[in-house]
Amino acid sequence: MSKKIVVSAFRWVPPFVRGHVRDLRVRWALEEAGLDYESRLIGPEDQHSDAYRALQPFGQVPIYQEGDLTLFESGAIVHHIAQRSAALMPSDENGRARVLTWMFAALNSIEPHVQELAIIDLFSEGEEWAKLRRPFVVDFVKLRLSNLATALGGRQHLESDRFTAADLLMTTVLRNLDPSLLAEFKSLAAYRARFEERPAFRKALAAQMADFVD
Amino acid sequence: MSKKIVVSAFRWVPPFVRGHVRDLRVRWALEEAGLDYESRLIGPEDQHSDAYRALQPFGQVPIYQEGDLTLFESGAIVHHIAQRSAALMPSDENGRARVLTWMFAALNSIEPHVQELAIIDLFSEGEEWAKLRRPFVVDFVKLRLSNLATALGGRQHLESDRFTAADLLMTTVLRNLDPSLLAEFKSLAAYRARFEERPAFRKALAAQMADFVD
Repeated sequence: MSKKIVVSAFRWVPPFVRGHVRDLRVRWALEEAGLDYESRLIGPEDQHSDAYRALQPFGQVPIYQEGDLTLFESGAIVHHIAQRSAALMPSDENGRARVLTWMFAALNSIEPHVQELAIIDLFSEGEEWAKLRRPFVVDFVKLRLSNLATALGGRQHLESDRFTAADLLMTTVLRNLDPSLLAEFKSLAAYRARFEERPAFRKALAAQMADFVD
Repeated sequence: MSKKIVVSAFRWVPPFVRGHVRDLRVRWALEEAGLDYESRLIGPEDQHSDAYRALQPFGQVPIYQEGDLTLFESGAIVHHIAQRSAALMPSDENGRARVLTWMFAALNSIEPHVQELAIIDLFSEGEEWAKLRRPFVVDFVKLRLSNLATALGGRQHLESDRFTAADLLMTTVLRNLDPSLLAEFKSLAAYRARFEERPAFRKALAAQMADFVD
Protein backbone atom coordinates (compact mmCIF):
# COMPACT_ATOMS: atom_id res chain seq x y z
CA MET A 1 0.00 0.00 0.00
CA SER A 2 2.46 2.63 -1.11
CA LYS A 3 -0.22 4.54 -3.04
CA LYS A 4 -1.75 7.62 -1.51
CA ILE A 5 -4.87 6.85 0.50
CA VAL A 6 -7.78 9.29 0.52
CA VAL A 7 -10.80 9.02 2.85
CA SER A 8 -13.90 11.16 2.42
CA ALA A 9 -15.48 12.87 5.44
CA PHE A 10 -18.12 15.52 6.04
CA ARG A 11 -17.01 19.13 6.32
CA TRP A 12 -19.87 19.83 8.71
CA VAL A 13 -22.33 17.82 10.82
CA PRO A 14 -24.42 18.89 13.84
CA PRO A 15 -22.34 18.94 17.05
CA PHE A 16 -24.04 15.88 18.60
CA VAL A 17 -23.01 13.73 15.63
CA ARG A 18 -19.36 14.78 15.67
CA GLY A 19 -17.06 11.97 16.70
CA HIS A 20 -19.62 9.42 15.49
CA VAL A 21 -19.44 9.70 11.69
CA ARG A 22 -18.40 6.49 9.98
CA ASP A 23 -15.14 7.74 8.51
CA LEU A 24 -13.94 7.40 12.13
CA ARG A 25 -13.81 3.62 11.65
CA VAL A 26 -11.57 3.92 8.62
CA ARG A 27 -9.31 6.55 10.17
CA TRP A 28 -8.96 4.33 13.24
CA ALA A 29 -8.09 1.25 11.16
CA LEU A 30 -5.50 3.24 9.21
CA GLU A 31 -3.92 4.51 12.44
CA GLU A 32 -3.77 0.97 13.86
CA ALA A 33 -2.14 -0.19 10.63
CA GLY A 34 0.28 2.75 10.62
CA LEU A 35 -0.83 4.00 7.23
CA ASP A 36 -0.91 7.66 6.19
CA TYR A 37 -3.99 9.12 4.56
CA GLU A 38 -5.55 12.38 3.52
CA SER A 39 -9.14 13.35 4.20
CA ARG A 40 -11.27 14.71 1.39
CA LEU A 41 -13.92 16.93 2.95
CA ILE A 42 -17.30 17.01 1.28
CA GLY A 43 -20.48 19.04 1.70
CA PRO A 44 -24.10 18.72 0.50
CA GLU A 45 -23.16 19.84 -3.02
CA ASP A 46 -20.76 16.89 -3.34
CA GLN A 47 -23.06 14.39 -1.62
CA HIS A 48 -25.72 14.94 -4.22
CA SER A 49 -23.43 15.27 -7.24
CA ASP A 50 -23.33 12.59 -9.93
CA ALA A 51 -19.53 12.46 -9.61
CA TYR A 52 -19.67 11.55 -5.91
CA ARG A 53 -22.63 9.20 -6.35
CA ALA A 54 -20.62 7.30 -8.96
CA LEU A 55 -18.21 6.47 -6.12
CA GLN A 56 -20.74 6.19 -3.25
CA PRO A 57 -24.22 5.25 -4.47
CA PHE A 58 -25.95 6.45 -1.29
CA GLY A 59 -24.15 9.77 -1.01
CA GLN A 60 -22.62 8.86 2.34
CA VAL A 61 -19.14 8.90 3.85
CA PRO A 62 -16.62 7.40 3.84
CA ILE A 63 -15.27 6.48 0.47
CA TYR A 64 -11.75 5.11 0.35
CA GLN A 65 -9.47 5.74 -2.61
CA GLU A 66 -6.13 4.04 -3.12
CA GLY A 67 -4.69 4.25 -6.61
CA ASP A 68 -7.38 2.99 -8.96
CA LEU A 69 -9.34 1.21 -6.22
CA THR A 70 -12.38 2.94 -4.75
CA LEU A 71 -14.34 1.33 -1.93
CA PHE A 72 -17.35 2.39 0.12
CA GLU A 73 -19.07 0.82 3.16
CA SER A 74 -16.99 1.27 6.30
CA GLY A 75 -17.12 -2.47 7.08
CA ALA A 76 -15.61 -3.40 3.73
CA ILE A 77 -12.96 -0.67 3.93
CA VAL A 78 -11.88 -1.72 7.43
CA HIS A 79 -11.67 -5.32 6.16
CA HIS A 80 -9.53 -4.23 3.20
CA ILE A 81 -7.08 -2.45 5.53
CA ALA A 82 -7.16 -5.30 8.05
CA GLN A 83 -6.41 -7.95 5.41
CA ARG A 84 -3.02 -6.39 4.96
CA SER A 85 -2.15 -5.48 8.53
CA ALA A 86 -1.20 -7.88 11.32
CA ALA A 87 -2.39 -5.15 13.71
CA LEU A 88 -6.04 -5.90 12.85
CA MET A 89 -6.28 -9.52 11.74
CA PRO A 90 -4.82 -12.88 12.71
CA SER A 91 -2.79 -14.54 9.95
CA ASP A 92 -4.60 -17.89 9.75
CA GLU A 93 -7.53 -18.32 7.41
CA ASN A 94 -9.96 -19.62 10.03
CA GLY A 95 -9.09 -16.78 12.38
CA ARG A 96 -9.73 -14.27 9.61
CA ALA A 97 -13.10 -15.80 8.81
CA ARG A 98 -14.04 -15.62 12.51
CA VAL A 99 -13.04 -11.94 12.68
CA LEU A 100 -15.19 -11.20 9.63
CA THR A 101 -18.07 -13.05 11.33
CA TRP A 102 -17.87 -10.60 14.23
CA MET A 103 -17.50 -7.65 11.86
CA PHE A 104 -20.80 -8.61 10.22
CA ALA A 105 -22.32 -9.23 13.66
CA ALA A 106 -21.41 -5.66 14.68
CA LEU A 107 -22.90 -4.12 11.54
CA ASN A 108 -25.81 -6.44 10.81
CA SER A 109 -26.96 -7.89 14.16
CA ILE A 110 -26.21 -5.01 16.56
CA GLU A 111 -25.94 -1.73 14.64
CA PRO A 112 -29.40 -1.69 12.96
CA HIS A 113 -31.05 -1.85 16.40
CA VAL A 114 -28.71 0.73 17.95
CA GLN A 115 -29.47 2.92 14.97
CA GLU A 116 -33.23 2.46 15.37
CA LEU A 117 -32.95 3.65 18.96
CA ALA A 118 -30.74 6.59 17.98
CA ILE A 119 -33.32 7.66 15.39
CA ILE A 120 -36.01 7.60 18.07
CA ASP A 121 -33.95 9.47 20.67
CA LEU A 122 -32.01 11.94 18.55
CA PHE A 123 -34.16 12.63 15.52
CA SER A 124 -37.77 11.97 16.54
CA GLU A 125 -38.15 13.73 19.87
CA GLY A 126 -41.76 14.30 20.84
CA GLU A 127 -43.13 12.25 17.93
CA GLU A 128 -46.02 9.97 18.85
CA TRP A 129 -44.78 6.91 16.93
CA ALA A 130 -41.40 7.19 18.66
CA LYS A 131 -42.99 7.30 22.12
CA LEU A 132 -45.12 4.24 21.33
CA ARG A 133 -42.28 2.28 19.74
CA ARG A 134 -39.41 3.11 22.10
CA PRO A 135 -40.01 0.49 24.85
CA PHE A 136 -39.93 -2.36 22.33
CA VAL A 137 -36.74 -1.10 20.69
CA VAL A 138 -35.02 -0.58 24.07
CA ASP A 139 -35.90 -4.12 25.10
CA PHE A 140 -34.59 -5.52 21.83
CA VAL A 141 -31.31 -3.58 22.08
CA LYS A 142 -30.89 -4.86 25.64
CA LEU A 143 -31.52 -8.41 24.51
CA ARG A 144 -28.82 -8.15 21.87
CA LEU A 145 -26.38 -6.50 24.31
CA SER A 146 -27.07 -9.24 26.82
CA ASN A 147 -26.31 -11.88 24.15
CA LEU A 148 -23.14 -10.01 23.23
CA ALA A 149 -22.03 -9.78 26.87
CA THR A 150 -22.57 -13.54 27.26
CA ALA A 151 -20.52 -14.23 24.13
CA LEU A 152 -17.70 -11.97 25.34
CA GLY A 153 -17.75 -13.61 28.78
CA GLY A 154 -14.65 -12.76 30.79
CA ARG A 155 -12.53 -12.20 27.68
CA GLN A 156 -11.18 -8.85 26.57
CA HIS A 157 -11.61 -9.38 22.81
CA LEU A 158 -14.25 -10.87 20.55
CA GLU A 159 -11.78 -13.12 18.76
CA SER A 160 -8.18 -14.28 18.73
CA ASP A 161 -7.21 -13.09 22.25
CA ARG A 162 -6.07 -9.77 20.82
CA PHE A 163 -7.49 -6.58 19.36
CA THR A 164 -8.83 -7.06 15.83
CA ALA A 165 -10.98 -5.29 13.26
CA ALA A 166 -13.97 -6.94 14.97
CA ASP A 167 -13.33 -5.07 18.22
CA LEU A 168 -12.75 -1.88 16.26
CA LEU A 169 -16.16 -2.04 14.56
CA MET A 170 -18.00 -3.26 17.66
CA THR A 171 -16.57 -0.40 19.73
CA THR A 172 -17.78 2.18 17.20
CA VAL A 173 -21.26 0.62 17.30
CA LEU A 174 -21.38 0.64 21.12
CA ARG A 175 -20.29 4.30 21.12
CA ASN A 176 -23.58 5.17 19.41
CA LEU A 177 -25.62 3.88 22.34
CA ASP A 178 -27.07 6.00 25.10
CA PRO A 179 -24.27 5.75 27.75
CA SER A 180 -26.77 5.07 30.56
CA LEU A 181 -28.12 2.08 28.65
CA LEU A 182 -24.64 0.72 27.91
CA ALA A 183 -23.74 1.21 31.61
CA GLU A 184 -26.23 -1.55 32.45
CA PHE A 185 -23.80 -3.96 30.77
CA LYS A 186 -20.62 -3.46 32.76
CA SER A 187 -18.36 -5.72 30.71
CA LEU A 188 -19.44 -4.01 27.47
CA ALA A 189 -19.02 -0.53 28.93
CA ALA A 190 -15.50 -1.54 30.05
CA TYR A 191 -14.81 -3.07 26.62
CA ARG A 192 -15.75 0.17 24.91
CA ALA A 193 -13.79 2.35 27.36
CA ARG A 194 -10.68 0.17 27.04
CA PHE A 195 -10.50 0.47 23.27
CA GLU A 196 -11.29 4.18 23.29
CA GLU A 197 -8.03 4.59 25.20
CA ARG A 198 -5.97 3.16 22.35
CA PRO A 199 -3.63 5.82 20.91
CA ALA A 200 -4.82 5.00 17.37
CA PHE A 201 -8.44 5.62 18.37
CA ARG A 202 -7.61 8.94 20.03
CA LYS A 203 -5.65 10.07 17.02
CA ALA A 204 -8.48 9.10 14.63
CA LEU A 205 -11.11 10.83 16.77
CA ALA A 206 -9.03 14.00 17.01
CA ALA A 207 -8.55 13.98 13.24
CA GLN A 208 -12.28 13.67 12.57
CA MET A 209 -13.08 16.47 15.03
CA ALA A 210 -10.34 18.73 13.63
CA ASP A 211 -11.78 18.42 10.13
CA PHE A 212 -15.16 19.98 10.97
CA VAL A 213 -15.58 23.59 9.97
CA ASP A 214 -17.92 25.94 11.80
CA MET B 1 -12.98 -28.02 1.61
CA SER B 2 -13.14 -31.77 1.89
CA LYS B 3 -14.56 -31.65 5.40
CA LYS B 4 -18.25 -32.16 5.94
CA ILE B 5 -20.20 -28.92 5.91
CA VAL B 6 -23.20 -28.49 8.23
CA VAL B 7 -25.61 -25.54 8.05
CA SER B 8 -28.22 -24.89 10.74
CA ALA B 9 -31.81 -24.08 9.75
CA PHE B 10 -35.16 -23.81 11.52
CA ARG B 11 -37.37 -26.89 11.66
CA TRP B 12 -40.46 -24.69 11.62
CA VAL B 13 -41.31 -21.05 10.81
CA PRO B 14 -44.67 -19.46 9.95
CA PRO B 15 -45.62 -20.08 6.29
CA PHE B 16 -45.09 -16.43 5.20
CA VAL B 17 -41.46 -16.55 6.34
CA ARG B 18 -40.64 -19.80 4.53
CA GLY B 19 -38.25 -19.28 1.65
CA HIS B 20 -36.89 -16.15 3.33
CA VAL B 21 -34.86 -17.50 6.26
CA ARG B 22 -31.19 -16.59 6.13
CA ASP B 23 -29.81 -20.11 5.77
CA LEU B 24 -31.10 -19.72 2.17
CA ARG B 25 -28.13 -17.44 1.43
CA VAL B 26 -25.66 -20.04 2.60
CA ARG B 27 -27.40 -22.94 0.85
CA TRP B 28 -27.41 -20.86 -2.36
CA ALA B 29 -23.69 -20.03 -2.09
CA LEU B 30 -22.87 -23.69 -1.48
CA GLU B 31 -24.91 -24.74 -4.53
CA GLU B 32 -23.16 -22.13 -6.71
CA ALA B 33 -19.81 -23.39 -5.44
CA GLY B 34 -20.81 -27.02 -6.01
CA LEU B 35 -20.27 -28.03 -2.39
CA ASP B 36 -22.27 -30.65 -0.53
CA TYR B 37 -23.70 -29.90 2.89
CA GLU B 38 -26.07 -31.25 5.48
CA SER B 39 -28.68 -29.19 7.26
CA ARG B 40 -28.99 -29.37 11.03
CA LEU B 41 -32.57 -28.53 11.93
CA ILE B 42 -33.16 -26.68 15.16
CA GLY B 43 -36.19 -25.67 17.21
CA PRO B 44 -36.85 -23.27 20.08
CA GLU B 45 -35.25 -25.63 22.61
CA ASP B 46 -31.95 -25.47 20.66
CA GLN B 47 -32.17 -21.75 19.95
CA HIS B 48 -32.25 -20.95 23.63
CA SER B 49 -29.78 -23.61 24.77
CA ASP B 50 -26.33 -22.66 26.05
CA ALA B 51 -24.77 -25.13 23.63
CA TYR B 52 -26.28 -23.42 20.57
CA ARG B 53 -25.68 -19.92 21.94
CA ALA B 54 -22.01 -20.79 22.31
CA LEU B 55 -21.97 -21.16 18.50
CA GLN B 56 -24.52 -18.42 17.62
CA PRO B 57 -24.67 -15.69 20.30
CA PHE B 58 -28.06 -14.39 19.13
CA GLY B 59 -29.76 -17.77 18.80
CA GLN B 60 -30.36 -17.31 15.09
CA VAL B 61 -29.73 -19.34 11.97
CA PRO B 62 -27.58 -20.12 10.14
CA ILE B 63 -24.44 -21.40 11.72
CA TYR B 64 -21.89 -23.01 9.44
CA GLN B 65 -19.66 -25.83 10.62
CA GLU B 66 -16.74 -27.20 8.67
CA GLY B 67 -14.26 -29.29 10.62
CA ASP B 68 -13.23 -27.24 13.63
CA LEU B 69 -14.38 -23.94 12.10
CA THR B 70 -17.75 -22.54 13.17
CA LEU B 71 -19.07 -19.32 11.64
CA PHE B 72 -22.28 -17.35 12.05
CA GLU B 73 -23.65 -14.26 10.22
CA SER B 74 -24.85 -15.15 6.73
CA GLY B 75 -22.72 -12.39 5.16
CA ALA B 76 -19.51 -13.76 6.65
CA ILE B 77 -20.39 -17.34 5.75
CA VAL B 78 -21.16 -16.45 2.14
CA HIS B 79 -17.83 -14.58 2.01
CA HIS B 80 -16.00 -17.62 3.39
CA ILE B 81 -17.49 -19.85 0.70
CA ALA B 82 -16.95 -17.24 -2.02
CA GLN B 83 -13.28 -16.75 -1.12
CA ARG B 84 -12.64 -20.28 -2.26
CA SER B 85 -14.92 -20.49 -5.28
CA ALA B 86 -14.41 -18.80 -8.62
CA ALA B 87 -18.19 -19.10 -9.05
CA LEU B 88 -18.78 -16.29 -6.54
CA MET B 89 -15.69 -14.06 -6.53
CA PRO B 90 -13.27 -12.60 -9.04
CA SER B 91 -9.66 -13.69 -8.51
CA ASP B 92 -7.98 -10.28 -8.25
CA GLU B 93 -7.63 -8.59 -4.89
CA ASN B 94 -9.26 -5.31 -5.91
CA GLY B 95 -12.21 -7.14 -7.45
CA ARG B 96 -12.67 -9.12 -4.25
CA ALA B 97 -12.61 -5.96 -2.13
CA ARG B 98 -15.24 -4.40 -4.42
CA VAL B 99 -17.47 -7.47 -4.11
CA LEU B 100 -17.21 -7.28 -0.32
CA THR B 101 -18.13 -3.58 -0.52
CA TRP B 102 -21.40 -4.54 -2.20
CA MET B 103 -21.96 -7.40 0.23
CA PHE B 104 -21.78 -4.92 3.12
CA ALA B 105 -23.97 -2.49 1.14
CA ALA B 106 -26.64 -5.18 0.82
CA LEU B 107 -26.59 -6.04 4.53
CA ASN B 108 -25.83 -2.66 6.10
CA SER B 109 -27.20 0.02 3.74
CA ILE B 110 -30.26 -1.73 2.26
CA GLU B 111 -31.35 -4.61 4.50
CA PRO B 112 -31.92 -2.68 7.77
CA HIS B 113 -34.48 -0.47 6.00
CA VAL B 114 -36.13 -3.37 4.17
CA GLN B 115 -36.32 -5.11 7.53
CA GLU B 116 -37.86 -2.07 9.21
CA LEU B 117 -40.61 -2.05 6.60
CA ALA B 118 -41.15 -5.80 6.93
CA ILE B 119 -41.56 -5.41 10.69
CA ILE B 120 -44.20 -2.75 10.12
CA ASP B 121 -46.10 -4.70 7.44
CA LEU B 122 -45.78 -8.27 8.66
CA PHE B 123 -45.49 -8.06 12.42
CA SER B 124 -47.18 -4.81 13.51
CA GLU B 125 -50.46 -4.78 11.63
CA GLY B 126 -52.95 -2.36 13.09
CA GLU B 127 -50.48 -0.84 15.54
CA GLU B 128 -50.65 2.91 15.83
CA TRP B 129 -46.88 3.54 15.78
CA ALA B 130 -46.61 1.48 12.59
CA LYS B 131 -49.32 3.48 10.84
CA LEU B 132 -47.65 6.75 11.80
CA ARG B 133 -44.14 5.62 10.90
CA ARG B 134 -44.81 3.71 7.67
CA PRO B 135 -44.80 6.60 5.16
CA PHE B 136 -41.34 7.73 6.27
CA VAL B 137 -39.91 4.21 6.08
CA VAL B 138 -41.43 3.61 2.64
CA ASP B 139 -39.92 6.85 1.36
CA PHE B 140 -36.52 5.93 2.76
CA VAL B 141 -36.59 2.44 1.25
CA LYS B 142 -37.55 3.97 -2.11
CA LEU B 143 -34.67 6.43 -1.86
CA ARG B 144 -32.19 3.62 -1.25
CA LEU B 145 -33.67 1.52 -4.09
CA SER B 146 -33.46 4.48 -6.40
CA ASN B 147 -29.78 4.96 -5.48
CA LEU B 148 -29.19 1.26 -6.05
CA ALA B 149 -30.92 1.33 -9.44
CA THR B 150 -28.75 4.29 -10.47
CA ALA B 151 -25.60 2.45 -9.40
CA LEU B 152 -26.64 -0.66 -11.31
CA GLY B 153 -27.47 1.38 -14.41
CA GLY B 154 -27.85 -0.80 -17.49
CA ARG B 155 -25.56 -3.51 -16.13
CA GLN B 156 -26.70 -6.96 -15.08
CA HIS B 157 -24.38 -7.36 -12.07
CA LEU B 158 -23.21 -5.16 -9.23
CA GLU B 159 -19.55 -5.91 -9.87
CA SER B 160 -17.15 -7.66 -12.22
CA ASP B 161 -19.56 -8.17 -15.16
CA ARG B 162 -20.58 -11.53 -13.78
CA PHE B 163 -22.60 -13.04 -10.97
CA THR B 164 -20.85 -12.76 -7.59
CA ALA B 165 -21.57 -13.13 -3.89
CA ALA B 166 -22.67 -9.47 -3.98
CA ASP B 167 -25.55 -10.27 -6.35
CA LEU B 168 -26.43 -13.30 -4.28
CA LEU B 169 -26.84 -11.28 -1.07
CA MET B 170 -28.53 -8.33 -2.75
CA THR B 171 -31.08 -10.65 -4.40
CA THR B 172 -31.98 -12.18 -1.03
CA VAL B 173 -32.47 -8.70 0.43
CA LEU B 174 -34.69 -7.58 -2.46
CA ARG B 175 -36.77 -10.76 -2.05
CA ASN B 176 -37.86 -9.49 1.37
CA LEU B 177 -39.49 -6.40 -0.12
CA ASP B 178 -43.17 -6.01 -0.85
CA PRO B 179 -43.27 -7.08 -4.56
CA SER B 180 -45.46 -4.11 -5.52
CA LEU B 181 -42.87 -1.73 -4.07
CA LEU B 182 -40.01 -3.46 -5.86
CA ALA B 183 -42.03 -3.38 -9.10
CA GLU B 184 -41.67 0.41 -9.11
CA PHE B 185 -37.97 -0.19 -9.86
CA LYS B 186 -38.06 -2.18 -13.07
CA SER B 187 -34.33 -2.84 -13.37
CA LEU B 188 -34.18 -4.12 -9.79
CA ALA B 189 -37.26 -6.30 -10.19
CA ALA B 190 -35.66 -7.79 -13.34
CA TYR B 191 -32.35 -8.21 -11.49
CA ARG B 192 -34.07 -10.15 -8.72
CA ALA B 193 -36.11 -12.29 -11.13
CA ARG B 194 -33.05 -13.11 -13.25
CA PHE B 195 -31.06 -14.49 -10.34
CA GLU B 196 -34.02 -16.36 -8.89
CA GLU B 197 -33.95 -18.40 -12.10
CA ARG B 198 -30.45 -19.69 -11.46
CA PRO B 199 -30.49 -23.46 -10.91
CA ALA B 200 -28.43 -23.07 -7.73
CA PHE B 201 -31.01 -20.68 -6.28
CA ARG B 202 -33.90 -22.97 -7.11
CA LYS B 203 -32.14 -25.92 -5.57
CA ALA B 204 -31.34 -23.97 -2.39
CA LEU B 205 -34.90 -22.68 -2.09
CA ALA B 206 -36.36 -26.15 -2.58
CA ALA B 207 -34.00 -27.51 0.07
CA GLN B 208 -35.03 -24.88 2.62
CA MET B 209 -38.72 -25.49 1.94
CA ALA B 210 -38.34 -29.27 2.11
CA ASP B 211 -36.74 -29.04 5.55
CA PHE B 212 -39.79 -27.48 7.23
CA VAL B 213 -41.93 -29.82 9.27
CA ASP B 214 -45.63 -29.22 9.83
